[in-house]
Parts: sequence; structure tokens; C-alpha cells
Amino acid sequence: MNASIPAITTGPLPASSKVHVQGTLHDITVPMRQIEVSDECPLNVYDSSGPYTDIAISIDIAKGLADSRGDWLRHRGDVEEYDGRTITAADNGFAEGERLTPAFPNQRRPMRAVGDRAVTQMAYARAGIITPEMEFVAIRENIGRTQALKEERDGEDFGACIPDFVTPEFVRQEIASGRAIIPANINHRELEPMIIGRNFLVKINANIGNSAVTSSMEEEVEKMVWSIRWGADTVMDLSTGRNIHNIRDWIIRNAPVPIGTVPLYQALEKVGGIAEDLTWEIFRDTLIEQAEQGVDYFTIHAGVRLHMIPLTARRVTGIVSRGGSIMAKWCLHHHRESFLYEHFEEICDICRRYDVSFSLGDGLRPGAIADANDAAQFAELETLGELTKIAWAKDCQVMIEGPGHVPMHKIKANMDKQLEHCHEAPFYTLGPLTTDIAPGYDHITSAIGAAMIGWFGTAMLCYVTPKEHLGLPDRNDVKTGVITYKLAAHAADLAKGHPGARMRDDALSRARFEFRWEDQFNLGLDPDTARSMHDETLPKQAHKVSHFCSMCGPKFCSMKISHDIRAEAEKQDGMQQMAGKFREGGQLYVPVTEPAE
Amino acid sequence: MNASIPAITTGPLPASSKVHVQGTLHDITVPMRQIEVSDECPLNVYDSSGPYTDIAISIDIAKGLADSRGDWLRHRGDVEEYDGRTITAADNGFAEGERLTPAFPNQRRPMRAVGDRAVTQMAYARAGIITPEMEFVAIRENIGRTQALKEERDGEDFGACIPDFVTPEFVRQEIASGRAIIPANINHRELEPMIIGRNFLVKINANIGNSAVTSSMEEEVEKMVWSIRWGADTVMDLSTGRNIHNIRDWIIRNAPVPIGTVPLYQALEKVGGIAEDLTWEIFRDTLIEQAEQGVDYFTIHAGVRLHMIPLTARRVTGIVSRGGSIMAKWCLHHHRESFLYEHFEEICDICRRYDVSFSLGDGLRPGAIADANDAAQFAELETLGELTKIAWAKDCQVMIEGPGHVPMHKIKANMDKQLEHCHEAPFYTLGPLTTDIAPGYDHITSAIGAAMIGWFGTAMLCYVTPKEHLGLPDRNDVKTGVITYKLAAHAADLAKGHPGARMRDDALSRARFEFRWEDQFNLGLDPDTARSMHDETLPKQAHKVSHFCSMCGPKFCSMKISHDIRAEAEKQDGMQQMAGKFREGGQLYVPVTEPAE
Repeated sequence: MNASIPAITTGPLPASSKVHVQGTLHDITVPMRQIEVSDECPLNVYDSSGPYTDIAISIDIAKGLADSRGDWLRHRGDVEEYDGRTITAADNGFAEGERLTPAFPNQRRPMRAVGDRAVTQMAYARAGIITPEMEFVAIRENIGRTQALKEERDGEDFGACIPDFVTPEFVRQEIASGRAIIPANINHRELEPMIIGRNFLVKINANIGNSAVTSSMEEEVEKMVWSIRWGADTVMDLSTGRNIHNIRDWIIRNAPVPIGTVPLYQALEKVGGIAEDLTWEIFRDTLIEQAEQGVDYFTIHAGVRLHMIPLTARRVTGIVSRGGSIMAKWCLHHHRESFLYEHFEEICDICRRYDVSFSLGDGLRPGAIADANDAAQFAELETLGELTKIAWAKDCQVMIEGPGHVPMHKIKANMDKQLEHCHEAPFYTLGPLTTDIAPGYDHITSAIGAAMIGWFGTAMLCYVTPKEHLGLPDRNDVKTGVITYKLAAHAADLAKGHPGARMRDDALSRARFEFRWEDQFNLGLDPDTARSMHDETLPKQAHKVSHFCSMCGPKFCSMKISHDIRAEAEKQDGMQQMAGKFREGGQLYVPVTEPAE
Repeated sequence: MNASIPAITTGPLPASSKVHVQGTLHDITVPMRQIEVSDECPLNVYDSSGPYTDIAISIDIAKGLADSRGDWLRHRGDVEEYDGRTITAADNGFAEGERLTPAFPNQRRPMRAVGDRAVTQMAYARAGIITPEMEFVAIRENIGRTQALKEERDGEDFGACIPDFVTPEFVRQEIASGRAIIPANINHRELEPMIIGRNFLVKINANIGNSAVTSSMEEEVEKMVWSIRWGADTVMDLSTGRNIHNIRDWIIRNAPVPIGTVPLYQALEKVGGIAEDLTWEIFRDTLIEQAEQGVDYFTIHAGVRLHMIPLTARRVTGIVSRGGSIMAKWCLHHHRESFLYEHFEEICDICRRYDVSFSLGDGLRPGAIADANDAAQFAELETLGELTKIAWAKDCQVMIEGPGHVPMHKIKANMDKQLEHCHEAPFYTLGPLTTDIAPGYDHITSAIGAAMIGWFGTAMLCYVTPKEHLGLPDRNDVKTGVITYKLAAHAADLAKGHPGARMRDDALSRARFEFRWEDQFNLGLDPDTARSMHDETLPKQAHKVSHFCSMCGPKFCSMKISHDIRAEAEKQDGMQQMAGKFREGGQLYVPVTEPAE
């Protein structure tokens, strides 16, 4: 590949442009995607894709995205720049020469809290402060709600508390209570803030990771850009091996979405992959390293405790979380309590200094239908609840990771127990997969569980790609996983009754009924795939305006016939008058409840 | 294509062979698929693929499959062979010469009931007779149940009544009560009977149809063979246009699964596509034509009544069922009640003579989230319940078609109302799709709804392919649709708590944990795709026996580490003893409910 041509996907999605809404409390600009629709008002939709889809912004990954949060942070007066930790060869797995990914060229000095101040969104929220981040997410979450106010609320929210309109004050309250988080490390100044909580839109996460062969910075940044283009709200960088420090820098400096990591992976690399050799000191140093880079949330498997490990002895698939298995091995080898558990307060002290959110890892999640909802899983969940309280006492933001493999009838119990034991901290689940028998289709098996648990109250869904259990996802797999999870999250939003969530469905269905093919493609989650599938059957441009469904042909097109029916009804009597007659119980139109015999 | 090489897919799936179980009440042989598993007993699974996957049987589509049911039927002594209706040029849309698909060469004379006898499974069931068909399905449904008796029952069945063991007598009772049907036209003698009912395994249907260009008989038969190879339990032939009589003959004579049709489509062809020109006489003649061919179930849109049509006036997508829209147009044009509704008893008289089951069509199903659960939909559902009683009075078997597009929170109401209004007749739904915004991914959007409604009690799920709303599915789309629906149906079976349903999940998960890659592929729903995805990341044969997960590599493989942990635990103390210590509240292993501080 020619190094002078960066392989970053830019440009808007079809028929789309970027629009911006200004804040009123703060000097902020919130981007949205506007989709042009023929004969209708354009539709604004939530947009996680960042500046990459904004034609007004030119992308240079060596410069990184604009520092939009710097002023917000300095304005708070509780942070200081400092020299930061010295990067060591170990941070990049001792890669050198040609094998070393170059450092990101435009480094900023890191920031941290002054003294022992907590600079977390939770700390501000509890102090009654509405931050720019809070107003930003309120504006994003409100898309369509003003218009939706005119319509009756619909949905079943299982005790969630979804407001008609999301005010910045509502955001503040939710964060203060721990029911929502805004993952926003003070060193991730390129961030467009987003919120994760049961009373907000359901979010999705995409996992990315470096390739085994040395890959270029462009390739690694492109994985993130590609994920958010299709709708990933956060991205976890699960890279292992060499160069992970430098790659992480390239990713974060170019990421408009929160970046999560599992610091244990890098710590394990630093001890040559020998779990038993892990120490608190190495782990602690890795946390600071990543906090200074701007990682927005850390998966910390502090809930895996020594006494729980025997509970996995009879499991069909043992421990399937990487972090969980590493910590279990460490605990068992040393016959000691987990250093993550023992040092949890110190971990909190680091996180509050940079506002790194916790994603408390479910190291003992089930990896098979047979292991779902077992003693090991729920023992850990109770510990995660205990840790949540410790973190909250330090003003740290927390979400809780969840399963895994769970049959449908056991999904609700996961949500209910999580709400109870973890005090309504946001839940963040992997699927769950509802069967074990479909390798190659686990994005689908898990989308079923994800949509359901999202409906029940899970705040963020970690995607699963078709390659789950089989291999490394490629570009197409990532896109398939993201789109699949976007539709699952949207199904959950609809069922929860988020005001305005149905606007896009309605716009697309109107386009479908009116044979506006282009609008139908453009309003869908994946316009390119929809268009190419239509082209396979009816390739000609003329068919994009044809007044029949491509599947049935003109004679058998129910929608065409529906239009004929409406036209005929207009001619005969007027459909509305007929409906009126029916309602009045006219002779022809007998009441439905008493069918004529 | 060389006509001498039939393009029919035959041969077993990987590591699979056909095994047979003999009946005890009747001289019947029930085929199953047996999957070889290394170091474990082979696993028997339900097999809808028919003789095509049996290496002992050679396929010649010009001969058709063996006449396995002829003796059963003659033994009952209530049927007669007769000359049957004369095939007209109109039956094939006046195709002639090269454009005419040749007639199936080995025609049998059709059978019908003697006099006004009812020869339906329901009539026999009500008379206390256990037919060979009933014993056949009992044996099929019982796969794994003997072994499952050892395990505790699990699942939530929402008031279904799933027995530990399916006896032929239980089948008889379910059919007598109308809670289940065995679609089995007496003229479909090649059939391997299957059952559709809430207390049996969830089934799936695949739709096929002829191509716009003239296609060969092999191509049309292959579509059916391909669908059942991947797991379709029934196939609907939705062909339109020319040659549909002859194509249907080729399909049925080679079909081991029930074939369903929408007779209205052919009737419409006979009147040149002009809905207004349809008459009861033409429709009636078409029913007899198809009943003589052996169609096992008819979709009949008799629930669309004149007075309901105005209820669709304000819908976003009007009427989206082809049959529903055709009938609505007819009703409105003539300002008359539907001839299907008015002649419903006569339709029953035909169906009872051949044992054609009813699939009462949901002509007013919602085609958009906005239209879900509306007055039109539920008015029709009540009428379908009324028609069910009429059909049952004539000893006809009935299932009820359902939606469509329904958000998750409105799905359960569909099931509950169907059970109530339709007196527990089996429900047969299309999805439902849980959002409208993902054209190109509607197999997934609908699998979410299908799995849920299957769990709630739907007996059969009609598949949706990725091309839904966009174009005609090709071979890959059909396979994707079938596998997607198999996993959704299986998710429902697990959640309902069918004894033995989890055996395949457990076997696959054990294989996964023990790095038996070949077993993992072979036990999955789509071994070929699983294998090829694994090959993409780790192509070498050596990796098929490698003791780590292909995604993570050896250092980060949680399952490898789990094995290390178990080995280490054995060494230290023995995992079980440790678990014992823990349970006794030893010093190290503190009780989970009281975490040590």
C-alpha cells in the first residue's frame, strides 16, 4: 500500500450530511447525521461516526482529531499538565527497528487531577455541576423527542425511567446516582461524549485488535473508523503482543468515541505471558500508562476471587473470559486472593484522577448454555456489586459486564440480579448467545439475546461477529457485527418506548409503501448492502422508481394493490367515510367484535 | 447445464449418516441423522432432509421418491383411486412448446375419500385411532428424551404441556384437540410425516418459487432439496406465472416434507392477474387440482372480510399480504363479502376429502412497526378463530398464520390473543420483524422476534431471508434464512424446556472446551461455513487439533488456561476437594454470600 494514501474511510453515508446543534449552557457543538428524504423532511439520526463523515473536516491521522475538550477541562480548574510516565521498551513489547510502530508524532503532555481531587463526571454530578459533557449527551439523546411529544408513549420499560425529554439536569442526576456513566478520560480530548445508562438509548461496543503480523497505523486506526462508521458507540482495543502502546496512541488520538481496554492484557505481555508472574506493581504502572494515554474505560476483573474458582470445576466450558482465566490462574498458583480485589481502592484512586470509568469484568461469565446462571457467575456478580460501592465512594464511574451464553428463559434473571446486586449501575453484556449450536452465525444467536436483555435494561451491548469462536473477524465481519447489534439495540429502544425511536422505522416504512426505493436504502442501517441486494434482482436504474415490489412483480405486489384499493375506495366513497360508516355500525360494515354470520 | 447430470444436492452432511428407528405399533421406519463425535457417543438429531442425505438411496427425480405411505392409506380402507381432474392448459398458464415444463412422467392416479368420509388425521385422532403418521412423528420428536429423563427439567413453557416423552397416544390427543396438526395430504405418499404444535419441537418453513425465466425441473426440485438439507421442516411453493402446475408435480413427487401453497396465486393466474375477475368456481377448481397433486396445506385468506378493509386506511403500509390484498381488492370492487369466507364450509369439504390442512392466512398482518397489533390485524384474528371452529367441525386440521412486523413488547400479546381467539390451534408466524430499519438484515431482525414468539408458543416459524423487501433470494440467501431460523427455533426449544434439546449444545460446547475442532464444526448447524471461517484464520490442518482458540493465540486462550487451572488444581489438592473445603466454610474458601472484607 502506498504510505502517502491513508487508507481511512471518510465521507458521508449516502444522502447524508452532518448537521450541528449548539448547546445553551455551554459552548458546545453536537454533530448529528441528517438523511435527505424525498418529499419529506430530512431525518436526523444519532451519529457516532465522528468527523470522518463530515466533508468539512479533512482527516490527517498523524495530527489526530481536534482537541475539542481541552477548554472544557481547563475551565474546571482542577487539572494540571505534567510530564507523565516515561514510555519504556516493555510498553511496546520490546519491538524495535522496523517492527516498532512509530510513536504518534503530535503528543500532548498528559493531564491529571490536582492533588486528590476527583475529576470524574460523577464527582461533578454529585456536586450539582452540569458539565459540557452532560449537555452534549443530552442533546444527542434528544433527537426526535420534540416531534415525538405529539404522539402517545408506547413501550414496556421494566421499571426504567425514560423521560419525554432528556434535560442536562436529568443527565446529571443519572450520573450522580450511578445509573449512567459518561466514559471520558480527561486525556481523551478528541472525544464526542456519549452516555451509557438504562434510561438512555441502548449503545453498542465493537472490539478491535491488532493483527498478528505487523500492521500499519492506518490499518489500526481504520478498524476503529470503520466500526464507528456503521454505528459502534464505543470501541474496545483488545490488542495484544507488540506495539500496543503506540497503536493505542494512534487510535485514541483519532477516536471520537470512548476507547476501552483490558489493562491486564498489556500487563501480561510485560511479564512474558506468564500469568503467575503478574504483580500489582506492574499492573498499577500499566493503569497509569493507559490513563495518561486517554483510555476511557478499563475492564478490571476484580470480581474473580480465589474462593470462587472451585465453583467452575464442573462447568462444561470452565472459565471463558481471558482476563478471568488469567486471574484465576494467578490466584490458584499463589493460593492468594486476587491482587485486583485487594488493591481495588488504589485502582479507584487512579481512575478518579483521570476519570477512567470502570467496566467491572465478568471473569466467570458462562461460555455455554449449560453453565448459564450458575453459582460461579452469580457469586462474582455479588462481588461486582460490592466493588461498585467502593468505586462510587471514590466518585468513580462504573458499569458492570455481563454474559455470555444464556438461554432465553434465563436472560431476565441476569438483568434482575444485576440491578439488585449492583445497585442499578449500567449493565454491559456480551450478547448473550441463546444457543451453542450455530458457529458461524453467533452474531445472530447473540443478537436475539442482546435485543432481549437490552429491552430488559442493559445499557450497552458488546457485539459478536460471525467469526466468534472460529477466527479473527475481517472488515466485513466487523461491519456485519456492528449492523447486527445496531438493529438489536434499536429493537430494544423501540420496545422500551424511547420517544422518537420509531421515527426512522416509520420513515423507512412510508418510503417502502410509496416505492421510494432510494429513500428505503438510505434510511436503512446499511444503504450499500440494501442497494446491492436490490440490484441483484432488478439492476436497472428504472427499477429504483418502479411501483412494485421487486420480489413479486406487478401482479402480485401487495403494496401496489393496496394503493389500487385506496384509489378505488376514494372513488367509491372515500375510505374515511367508509371507515366512518363502519364505526357507526352501518348495514354493510358490521362491528368487528360481532362478526356477521 | 448438461441435462444428463441432475443438479440435485445429495450426500450426507459432514460426519453424518442416516440411522433408522422402527415403529412398534406400525411397520414404519423413521430416519434420523447421526453425527459421529470423537471420544463420545454419536449424537442423533432430527432430520428433515429426507432420502437425499441417505447414501443407500439413489435419487432419480423423474421417478420421484418412494411411495412409503401408499400401504398405510389403503390399509385404512376409506380411500379410493379415481381418474382425477383433467389438466388444462390454463393450469400451466398456457405455456406451450419449449416454454412448457414437461409433465412429471410417472403420474399416479389420485386418491380421495370414499363418499363423504373424513380422511384427516384429526378424524382418526378423534376416533381414537393412532395412525402410522402419528407414531412416526412421536419417534422423531423423542430424539434425546430417554437420555434427558436422567436430568432435571428446565425451561419456561408459558402454559404449554411438553411431556417428558412423546407417546403416539399423546400425539393422537394433541391432534384430536386441534392443538397440533400433521399436514399430510393422502396424495403426498412420499411424505415423512412431521407435526406442528405448541407441545412439540418448533418447526420452520422455507418459501421457494419459480424464477421469472424458464427454469428446469431440476432447478425447482433442487430449491426444495436445498432448503430441507439445511433444516426446513416444510416448504411453501409460492410460484406464480407459467408452468406452476407441472413444477408443483415435480416438487411434490420428490418432497419428503409437507408442501404448502397459496391456491389464490394460481387462481389469479387463471384470470389473467385481474383480481376482480376471480370467482368461487375457478378457486374451487384450483383447490381440487392442487389437492389431487398432494399439496399438504393451503394458505386460505378467508379472514379478510369486507368490513375490515377500511380499518387499514390509516396504516403506514396498508395491506402487505399478497393474498390479503388480492381479496381486499376483490371485496371492495364487488362490494361483497369475500367468496372465501362465504364458501368456507365447501372449502372444508374439499380439504377433509384429501386431508389438506388449513393455514388460515393473515391477510391483514402488519407490514410495519407502526401497524403492529392494530384493529385490522386483531379483527381478522378473531375471524380466523371463528373459521377454525368451522373447520374443526368438519374434522379438518388447522393452523393460523401470524405477523409480520411487531416490536418486541407487542409480541407476547400476539401469542396470547391467538391462543385465546383461535382455541389453541397451532400458530405459524412470519418472523415477526422487530424493527423496520435494517433492509438486507431482515433475517436477523426477524429471528429476534421468531425466537421470542417460538418461545411463547408459536409452533412453526416462516423464514425470512436477507433479501426480504429487496429482491429474490438466491441459493445462499435461502441457506442463510434456513440456518437463521433453525437457530431461532432451537433457541425457543431450549427456552421452552424440551427435554433433550440441550444435548447438541452440550456436545458442541464440550468439543469447544476440549479443542475438538472437527467435532465443533460437525455438530453445528452449518459445518461448511464454520470450517471455512476457521480456515480463514488458521488454514493448516494442524490447527484443527491445536489446543488453543484461534482468536486469542496460546497465551490468551481462556480455555487453554482453564485446562491449566484444572491441572494445577488437581496437583495442588484436587479441584473437587477444594470445592468441598469451600462448601464446608474452610478458612480460605469463605462463603460467597458473605464476602470477606
